Amino acid sequence: MHPFTLDHAHQLDAQDPLKSYREQFVLSDPNLIYLDGNSLGAMPKATPPRLDEVVQKEWGDRLIRSWNEGWYDRSQKIAAQIAKLIGAQDDEVIVADSTSANLFKLAYGALKLKSNRHGIISDTLNFPSDIYLLQGLIRLFGDKHELNLAQSADEQRVTLEELDRLIDEDTALLTLSHVVFKSAFMYDMKTITDKVHQKGGLVLWDLSHAAGAVPVDLNGCDVDMAVGCTYKYLNGGPGSLAFLYVRKDLQEKLESPIWGWFGEANPFEFDLNYRPATGIRKFLAGTPPLLSLSAIEPSVDMLVEVGMNRIREKSVAQTRYMIDLYKQVLAPLGYKLGSPENDEQRGSHVSLKHPEAYRICKALIDPATLGKSVIPDFREPDNIRLGITPLYTSFVDLFMAIEQMRSIVDDKEYERYSDQKEEVT
Amino acid sequence: MHPFTLDHAHQLDAQDPLKSYREQFVLSDPNLIYLDGNSLGAMPKATPPRLDEVVQKEWGDRLIRSWNEGWYDRSQKIAAQIAKLIGAQDDEVIVADSTSANLFKLAYGALKLKSNRHGIISDTLNFPSDIYLLQGLIRLFGDKHELNLAQSADEQRVTLEELDRLIDEDTALLTLSHVVFKSAFMYDMKTITDKVHQKGGLVLWDLSHAAGAVPVDLNGCDVDMAVGCTYKYLNGGPGSLAFLYVRKDLQEKLESPIWGWFGEANPFEFDLNYRPATGIRKFLAGTPPLLSLSAIEPSVDMLVEVGMNRIREKSVAQTRYMIDLYKQVLAPLGYKLGSPENDEQRGSHVSLKHPEAYRICKALIDPATLGKSVIPDFREPDNIRLGITPLYTSFVDLFMAIEQMRSIVDDKEYERYSDQKEEVT
Repeated sequence: MHPFTLDHAHQLDAQDPLKSYREQFVLSDPNLIYLDGNSLGAMPKATPPRLDEVVQKEWGDRLIRSWNEGWYDRSQKIAAQIAKLIGAQDDEVIVADSTSANLFKLAYGALKLKSNRHGIISDTLNFPSDIYLLQGLIRLFGDKHELNLAQSADEQRVTLEELDRLIDEDTALLTLSHVVFKSAFMYDMKTITDKVHQKGGLVLWDLSHAAGAVPVDLNGCDVDMAVGCTYKYLNGGPGSLAFLYVRKDLQEKLESPIWGWFGEANPFEFDLNYRPATGIRKFLAGTPPLLSLSAIEPSVDMLVEVGMNRIREKSVAQTRYMIDLYKQVLAPLGYKLGSPENDEQRGSHVSLKHPEAYRICKALIDPATLGKSVIPDFREPDNIRLGITPLYTSFVDLFMAIEQMRSIVDDKEYERYSDQKEEVT
Repeated sequence: MHPFTLDHAHQLDAQDPLKSYREQFVLSDPNLIYLDGNSLGAMPKATPPRLDEVVQKEWGDRLIRSWNEGWYDRSQKIAAQIAKLIGAQDDEVIVADSTSANLFKLAYGALKLKSNRHGIISDTLNFPSDIYLLQGLIRLFGDKHELNLAQSADEQRVTLEELDRLIDEDTALLTLSHVVFKSAFMYDMKTITDKVHQKGGLVLWDLSHAAGAVPVDLNGCDVDMAVGCTYKYLNGGPGSLAFLYVRKDLQEKLESPIWGWFGEANPFEFDLNYRPATGIRKFLAGTPPLLSLSAIEPSVDMLVEVGMNRIREKSVAQTRYMIDLYKQVLAPLGYKLGSPENDEQRGSHVSLKHPEAYRICKALIDPATLGKSVIPDFREPDNIRLGITPLYTSFVDLFMAIEQMRSIVDDKEYERYSDQKEEVT
């Protein structure tokens, strides 16, 4: 058991082989403890100079010539780096559009390819946005599909048995978040993918809470399709472009619904008959926003340099540390663990639940409370989500967060805050 | 007739009421004559400091809190400015995704709404990308539509008679570029929109070559839908986000196919059943790329400040000047005018055609030719497209471009260049 002392947290930081990476991020406020990298990653110090180069030199000076000097291939260059983080080949990943648009494109392709099947499977723990997109696609295909959402008995995880019950010969598509956004529950990607394949269906994993947070092996798990965002653990900046993956041998068969010029075989021939590009490029649609695209590169390069195994090692040590302190200090105060205790089933955040979660979050964020602003995020109805990004999260950060969560409930400081919900995030 | 002298060009610049605006753009190379603002607008000097604020302060320091401090409404704030440039109301425009994705969303909505009709009309002068998207949608709807492309007799314009012949009671959707990207031919938006409405169809205008280039009056023309990019005459930066417009009374009826969380009524309630947002927000899909989005603001603010009428006045004077010099100097050398002579039918660029257009473009761009680099763009098969952005294009720029085009053909300098096409743009 970890002792609940600041000294011990400092010792853990001193022994941390990744500790130097924190210096590579802009975290300028010493009174800020940022545990929301799973909503918006902190900014690498290398990003502003890179953006400055793109803005001043590439746009400002080189203007249109930059399309021939790096812009046209930039999406694929960054995608090749992301591929290394998720166990994919260079030519299986592209960076484009939003996670929503990418999920739309791939799920459309899957339902079209499996048009004689009617089952779509997801779960009640998935991003609502992913469920909305499926609902929209069902309408688009003429309401002939059935959407089955696997239920969770404990609001944390869905059992393999529950999923197994839903997968059958009529399953066209199963799509789940590899790491669940509220609880950090992590699915067994290989087992589930295999089960769907055995019945002849396709699998699409949403890696938004997994990419950069946990090692992912899409090729090793024989995954058909995947999407994910880059603004969480990949630190690509607010709303930065998303990625999508399609397994090599499936690329030819899968059709994109959005036939834009960047997905065309020869966009600058300006032919009037669309011919899809060969390979992964056919899932591109319009011109990519180059500034937001370019901002992804420095962080992804850093993650590739460190390697997902070392990141995972620290992440597990940190989530374990949090859970350990929670048990000692917060459980007696009415907090409940909203994340799996089993390391194998936990991504890189810890959710703690409390009936006063919303007001506790407000007190945590308010620097007036204890002189420090702790930023987690609140997720309905009672989750306090504490994100761990091993490259910049320290053990002292986690100690301080637990200490504040203790004091806010112990001293009933949350009572000074309204439970009126005003914020949008 | 304008005399073909540098002195006269300098005089025209001296009399130009908008001349001071050139100083507000980064055009740092005195030997660069940039006539490609219709592909990628030059960078306003106000943009890098604004981006720096977004990057350093909003992302770097404020992190996730910025969603509640301006990010969430930024798309609508910028859209409200764009609305002023295109004759629309604040709540009829949003900025999101790419032009391709927006055209896909709106054309889908139109075809769904008019599902008992089978005709789709466009023309052979439209962006091939727009045609591709229509071809994709026809496939998506089960190949029950017929795409009729109005032909152009002269590769410059399509007559009203030709369009009229195609519009009938079976027309679901007519979609055209308001200003044609090759020739700068400008359609009579009101007359065409009226004709389609008389037969009960819907109209979608692509404003990519019109917004910021010519005054557009969507409300005055009773237009149903419009899309457009912001990286050309709106100077929003490479691949910057696109906009879309839906007339107020049509917003309720039109369905978006991409049901993402940003278009949901209450995205942060995380409800599992999609309810579209009321109004224009329902055409949003995923999280917008904030850096590329924010870069649009300074330029659009400047355009609103100047006003489209003053911009148009200078644009017409400049395209007229170019055509006048072309007649005197270039027509005798085998150049042909590829744009309408009638001001009312011409946007803000001039296309000049020549059998050696591709090699002439190479010679123009190469600073070794005459010590100046003139950047137009080449469009298949023989167009040299010379873009005029009145806020930063000078009469001297235009004079120098004509002079170089003269000398390159007169002295056969283009023969030193290969006609092998290597560039992507």
